[in-house]
Amino acid sequence: MKAQVIVKLKQGVLDPQGVAIGKSLSTLGFQGVNSVRQGKIFEIDLNASDEKSAKDELQKMSEKLLANPVIEDFEIKVSAS
Amino acid sequence: MKAQVIVKLKQGVLDPQGVAIGKSLSTLGFQGVNSVRQGKIFEIDLNASDEKSAKDELQKMSEKLLANPVIEDFEIKVSAS
Repeated sequence: MKAQVIVKLKQGVLDPQGVAIGKSLSTLGFQGVNSVRQGKIFEIDLNASDEKSAKDELQKMSEKLLANPVIEDFEIKVSAS
Repeated sequence: MKAQVIVKLKQGVLDPQGVAIGKSLSTLGFQGVNSVRQGKIFEIDLNASDEKSAKDELQKMSEKLLANPVIEDFEIKVSAS
């Protein structure tokens, strides 16, 4: 089963890396960029009996390792294949 | 206009970080993880007259700064809002 976990900084948490990328885009001549925020995406191939158990497992993985729940939100997408 | 750019390593490009995450998951007791690959996601808020011009601009940004086209693929999603 293939899954994606998207980890993003929570709203209101400062993202200096995103700000730096935004400034670099301006320097390169891209006008009209209001904001940039950077996150992470994990593509995970795992064995699971069904979608629900895969989601439960991914939820635990995200809380324990993939995301820092204090400052980050995460989103889980499972595609049965 | 809000957009997402997802940058992933190309198929076949070694992802040592993803491998390390997979091993950590096993160590934490998550069995059944076959592979993990890590990518980046950029959430960009930009001014553009329409979806097409936003996509063109994002395509250029990705080629110039956000992705390394030699080893990475990117995907652009624009949501008009």
